[in-house]
Amino acid sequence: MGEKHRVVILGGGFGGLNAAQKLKRAPVDVTLIDRRNFHLFQPLMYQVATGSLSPGEIAAPLRGVLSRQKNTQVLLGEAADIDPDAKRVILRDGAVFPYDSLIVATGSQTSYYGKEEWREWAPSLKSIEEATAIRHKILYAFECAERSATEQEARAWLTFVIVGAGATGMELAGALAEIANETLKNDFRRINPREARIILMEGGERVLNNFPEDLSSKAEMLVSRLGVDVKKGVMVTCIDADGVTYKSGQESKSLIAKTVLWAGGVTTNLFGRKLAERTKSETDRSGRIKVSPDLTVSGYPDIFIVGDLALSLGEDGKPLPGVAQVAIQGGAYAAKTIRARQKGKKDTKPFHYFNKGDMAVIGRAAAVANIFGFHLAGLFAWLTWLFVHLIYIVEFQSRVLVFVQWGFEYLTFSRGARLITGVAATDSLEKPGAFRDTGDGR
Amino acid sequence: MGEKHRVVILGGGFGGLNAAQKLKRAPVDVTLIDRRNFHLFQPLMYQVATGSLSPGEIAAPLRGVLSRQKNTQVLLGEAADIDPDAKRVILRDGAVFPYDSLIVATGSQTSYYGKEEWREWAPSLKSIEEATAIRHKILYAFECAERSATEQEARAWLTFVIVGAGATGMELAGALAEIANETLKNDFRRINPREARIILMEGGERVLNNFPEDLSSKAEMLVSRLGVDVKKGVMVTCIDADGVTYKSGQESKSLIAKTVLWAGGVTTNLFGRKLAERTKSETDRSGRIKVSPDLTVSGYPDIFIVGDLALSLGEDGKPLPGVAQVAIQGGAYAAKTIRARQKGKKDTKPFHYFNKGDMAVIGRAAAVANIFGFHLAGLFAWLTWLFVHLIYIVEFQSRVLVFVQWGFEYLTFSRGARLITGVAATDSLEKPGAFRDTGDGR
Repeated sequence: MGEKHRVVILGGGFGGLNAAQKLKRAPVDVTLIDRRNFHLFQPLMYQVATGSLSPGEIAAPLRGVLSRQKNTQVLLGEAADIDPDAKRVILRDGAVFPYDSLIVATGSQTSYYGKEEWREWAPSLKSIEEATAIRHKILYAFECAERSATEQEARAWLTFVIVGAGATGMELAGALAEIANETLKNDFRRINPREARIILMEGGERVLNNFPEDLSSKAEMLVSRLGVDVKKGVMVTCIDADGVTYKSGQESKSLIAKTVLWAGGVTTNLFGRKLAERTKSETDRSGRIKVSPDLTVSGYPDIFIVGDLALSLGEDGKPLPGVAQVAIQGGAYAAKTIRARQKGKKDTKPFHYFNKGDMAVIGRAAAVANIFGFHLAGLFAWLTWLFVHLIYIVEFQSRVLVFVQWGFEYLTFSRGARLITGVAATDSLEKPGAFRDTGDGR
Repeated sequence: MGEKHRVVILGGGFGGLNAAQKLKRAPVDVTLIDRRNFHLFQPLMYQVATGSLSPGEIAAPLRGVLSRQKNTQVLLGEAADIDPDAKRVILRDGAVFPYDSLIVATGSQTSYYGKEEWREWAPSLKSIEEATAIRHKILYAFECAERSATEQEARAWLTFVIVGAGATGMELAGALAEIANETLKNDFRRINPREARIILMEGGERVLNNFPEDLSSKAEMLVSRLGVDVKKGVMVTCIDADGVTYKSGQESKSLIAKTVLWAGGVTTNLFGRKLAERTKSETDRSGRIKVSPDLTVSGYPDIFIVGDLALSLGEDGKPLPGVAQVAIQGGAYAAKTIRARQKGKKDTKPFHYFNKGDMAVIGRAAAVANIFGFHLAGLFAWLTWLFVHLIYIVEFQSRVLVFVQWGFEYLTFSRGARLITGVAATDSLEKPGAFRDTGDGR
């Protein structure tokens, strides 16, 4: 055992898990280290946030997924530092892991563009805890509106702002519209949930700006049809307990809203910054580390970076986006390269990203997709989305359950996972800031 | 609307929800007030704690359940005080609700018999938050054992103590044994989960002491066969970070265990004590309020108490137990009495509890049941338990999902909901006390 090539993988997301699985039959010792004990199916996180799915349904325990892979051990821990010359990773609790090859797949975290204080008022959708916090925030808002003393107060509780109109923002807006218009329509006596205002704010000139322009406009039309008010070209300047202040053109405006959700950008986490520092790597504006064509760090051919932390260029010369497909293929590539090197091959092909397509779901039977240049919108795009997502969910069990749940929900508009948990219910009335049970949001 | 008889129901558990539903067609205005926005199917809570089910699967949003009941409104709030002469309930946020009839169904909370400091080390199974905290504690223990430096340390992490061998304690012990022996058996590399020690401690002379003696011994045999070490007649004298100290006979012993779970007694919550004080009611040792044969408070015929908070006597002169059936029938009785009084009837029949049977589940295909005097043990009792529980789960959706999940689990021994969430994983390694994300556990 001890003489085998030691591969340490940091992170059990799409990149890290796929790398581990691709090393199944390789004559190496694999150690997968993650802060959490589960792999998370991130693309469905918005469904947890909007009460369609339970956290357990989009997560698979890493040990379970890898239990039959005898050359691999899973450890719970958080990478804190690295000594790239001595080839050692140091965990936060001081444990040291030497490696022969290292695959860094630690991903990204939400960026508030330097305004960390906004996090308190506008949670993002990066961890399971944040997803449930968002769910609480949304459901509480309706509860508080029902108990409001004045119409003005109820109005503030029934105003929802989503900042950022990328895929996540569109998904949240669409699901929120469905909650207001369908799920809750009979549930209240004093308020009418259908009167909720949902505002989607985007700094750019169009929604889904990584999609072709025609799909952007189709998506905007689809989400507007659900009652979402799309504001483009606005710059958020402040988020606090009362709502959002933003600039539209030269004008500064305020919007009173008790619920603000953040679907903005991402940045690297602490370990990513440490790695860049220790290897003296070049990084981009959001902290991604520039990698060689074979996904290794310049000067350190034994350190691979895959997924959101890597800045690698596609064929068009543009950086590859931070999506699951890039991480999956990067993880598989790193594993393949390690196997090839084991066999004594010196020259390995550079990483080539094969884009299977981009999709964004907007609501019930509504999505847009760009697949091999075919632009789809509406029901067919949605069915494609549904199919692809069901296929990819890691564990068989989750797949069956999610399918049953979706089928039921599609027919009844009900949402099973409408729990408000965490802080005591009544503690939080009137205190949206109290939803900070997101210990590891960052 | 305003002239109708106003019924206020405090608590959306079995008692309160059933009372509300039975008032569906009555010419009254019903207001159901609960601290949480969901009804919880308490009897399956241990399955959340042991990773079989997700919280959403055993909970139904109260608004959803009652959405088509037009005479009923649901409000999120916590009763803090009562003025029984002015007929008003005061919520914690100061809101005042006048009533013509009041149904108090606020239930019970865990009692640590005056040792509140034990709560930190030995969570109980009363709220969803505690159930997930227990799940984290159990799964973490195996993770920490895998990363332990010494065998002694690993041993401490692999020792689990459950205090109390009532139905909850037996369920937890059985499920924990299954996790150690089956679910996790291939998941670790350094430890063998099957070497976990599970100790069930009971102060009395037998397990399940509200069951007939022959079923107690059968149940003990069934749980012992799973590898659980049952210690009877022991008195716990201390619980802390290191484990449990207890007296067995005259001897004081210590057991080093990183995981202790509390399945001890219950007591009334704050509002129950306030109610007893304001109505000058008699209470028993655990704070339950003595009620008249029609479940009303002595001197206050418009205040009904149903469920765990009520001390009402059965036909045998013994107090009725704090189980779902008693609460359900009590809630229905209170609703019926209010309807009868509305129609001008003065004399209503006293409450009569119809015991449909007692059941306790011990593990896979193992349970004991006492139904109309028939004593069942083993597979058949388990099938009965399964059937009854599936029937009773409130929402159709949950029922289907739970069924699918159970079927899958029964065939594969896998557990879908094995997430460790809440506090950041690595923050809590070595700190079992850190699992206190149970804001409202009390």
